[in-house]
Amino acid sequence: MRKKVVAGIDIGGMNTRIGLVDQSGEVLADSNIATDQYPTPEEFISAIHNSIDLLLKNPDMPLSELIGIGIGAPCANYHTGSIENAANLPWKHVPLASMLEVNFPDVPVKVTNDANAVAIAEMIYGDARNLNDFVVITLGTGLGSGIVSNGELIYGHDGFAGEVGHITAVPNGRQCNCGRCGCLETYVSARGIKRTVFELLANSTEDSLLRDSSFNELSSKDIHAAALKGDPIAVEAFRITGEILGRSLADVVAFTSPSAIFIFGGLAEAKDMILNPAKENMEKYLVGCFRGKVQIKPSALGNKDAGIVGGASLVWRNFI
Amino acid sequence: MRKKVVAGIDIGGMNTRIGLVDQSGEVLADSNIATDQYPTPEEFISAIHNSIDLLLKNPDMPLSELIGIGIGAPCANYHTGSIENAANLPWKHVPLASMLEVNFPDVPVKVTNDANAVAIAEMIYGDARNLNDFVVITLGTGLGSGIVSNGELIYGHDGFAGEVGHITAVPNGRQCNCGRCGCLETYVSARGIKRTVFELLANSTEDSLLRDSSFNELSSKDIHAAALKGDPIAVEAFRITGEILGRSLADVVAFTSPSAIFIFGGLAEAKDMILNPAKENMEKYLVGCFRGKVQIKPSALGNKDAGIVGGASLVWRNFI
Repeated sequence: MRKKVVAGIDIGGMNTRIGLVDQSGEVLADSNIATDQYPTPEEFISAIHNSIDLLLKNPDMPLSELIGIGIGAPCANYHTGSIENAANLPWKHVPLASMLEVNFPDVPVKVTNDANAVAIAEMIYGDARNLNDFVVITLGTGLGSGIVSNGELIYGHDGFAGEVGHITAVPNGRQCNCGRCGCLETYVSARGIKRTVFELLANSTEDSLLRDSSFNELSSKDIHAAALKGDPIAVEAFRITGEILGRSLADVVAFTSPSAIFIFGGLAEAKDMILNPAKENMEKYLVGCFRGKVQIKPSALGNKDAGIVGGASLVWRNFI
Repeated sequence: MRKKVVAGIDIGGMNTRIGLVDQSGEVLADSNIATDQYPTPEEFISAIHNSIDLLLKNPDMPLSELIGIGIGAPCANYHTGSIENAANLPWKHVPLASMLEVNFPDVPVKVTNDANAVAIAEMIYGDARNLNDFVVITLGTGLGSGIVSNGELIYGHDGFAGEVGHITAVPNGRQCNCGRCGCLETYVSARGIKRTVFELLANSTEDSLLRDSSFNELSSKDIHAAALKGDPIAVEAFRITGEILGRSLADVVAFTSPSAIFIFGGLAEAKDMILNPAKENMEKYLVGCFRGKVQIKPSALGNKDAGIVGGASLVWRNFI
């Protein structure tokens, strides 16, 4: 009997990762294409098609049957199966599902945004397996979120629900790429913590390892490395980031009352440095009836494959 | 054949209203007891029992069969069927459902908070009949909310979801009864607009009809009446209230992306005076992908009976 596999696809601004995932969530084979090397959606879809075919023919793979394709992508709409108004991709609109269904007419193609895909993977393969009400916050360049209530992901009437990165954390605060000011992701994200470092470097006279990097050079990994060495600016930047995250999570709880909030992505690797101030401030700002009930913890999904597994879990969830 | 009816109960700090509601949402008979006249939950439950029996025996009623009891109450938990940690009731904890089930062993007893009950009534009898994703905001002494996503009310893991009145509207803002500062309901509610009037009376030198009332005397109805006469302080108070409401509704939309937000309760009677600035500011603060998609409108439920119908709709929804 052939082994059933789902192709999980994680579309990012630079790279698109494609993998074949079995029912247990294991990535059996994977490959990578450079998103920005394809001038048209047609060429991009054709490259995905070829990649999936090559992976299926990979001699190291068991004899397999493709039973579906699941995709996580920025600005992807679950209802329409399309990427809509993407800012960080080479193409603004791509009807992903309908284009791939031409190439793979016999299998379902499911599409959602990357944070929602991670939330579904957490529900099927991670620590949210027995939870009906939880939230996943993904900390990458920006801040994404997937909200699960009553055991179902909340897509909203238009497929775009879960934009927690764009709730107001600081009225009239930092300018956001979305055109608003003070959005949560301008403080809590890889780019947000960098902005906080530069604000601290400007406001204090404290010596810091980070005074030798330009804004464009500095990465959140550098800030994490400096914090591990005890650099006071880096440590304070993580504390502030956690504080603002915790304050906003108190609002998240007031909406959907999740039992747990999972933090996923690069910044979450700083663990207690960001999670402790987040927990402390969430508790401080929670309405009484929610206090002491909501866990904040790092996602149980490995960073490396979560995008691929997240995409695949859109399909696997219908079989599990 | 006997007509099937549900007892809908609306428990408030002062009054508890009890009515018999048919499947079409019509209140066939109703009565009223003074909540605060009952020193113990047992006496209160016994009074509700008597009221329902009397209504069923009312000679003006068609021959009826009671098929369920639905209750909307402050701090009521859908999962446990209890009132928990009530601040404005004579008793802190009341296991409503289990106590009433002793008196009425043959019918289901459903309990939820008052705003959730209104949301379900809006879904069954109001303007949300064809909507899967919407929000109801109730403006009374405080601000309540009921959030419906994927066609289901969001109760959260503990039954307390939908506390939009306690998201932060103004960081370090007005003191709230909940112990926090800057909660939305300290600005947007009958009490909130009164606080805004007093702030305006303090800050401006403008003449106003409202300068002759004490804080305790002044009601939101007085403010509405003054605004209708063009009183500049009253008009400005409604504008500010609508502005803060609209700004926070932009965050509500970023969470669950509803297609409509229904405003219910006393302040909503001021219609455009509060709804126009709310619409304008929600649009202004919305992330681009949500703009022009979300309606704000007054609830289609009449204020008078909505509490009773809301309670009853908790039961009727399982038959409709």
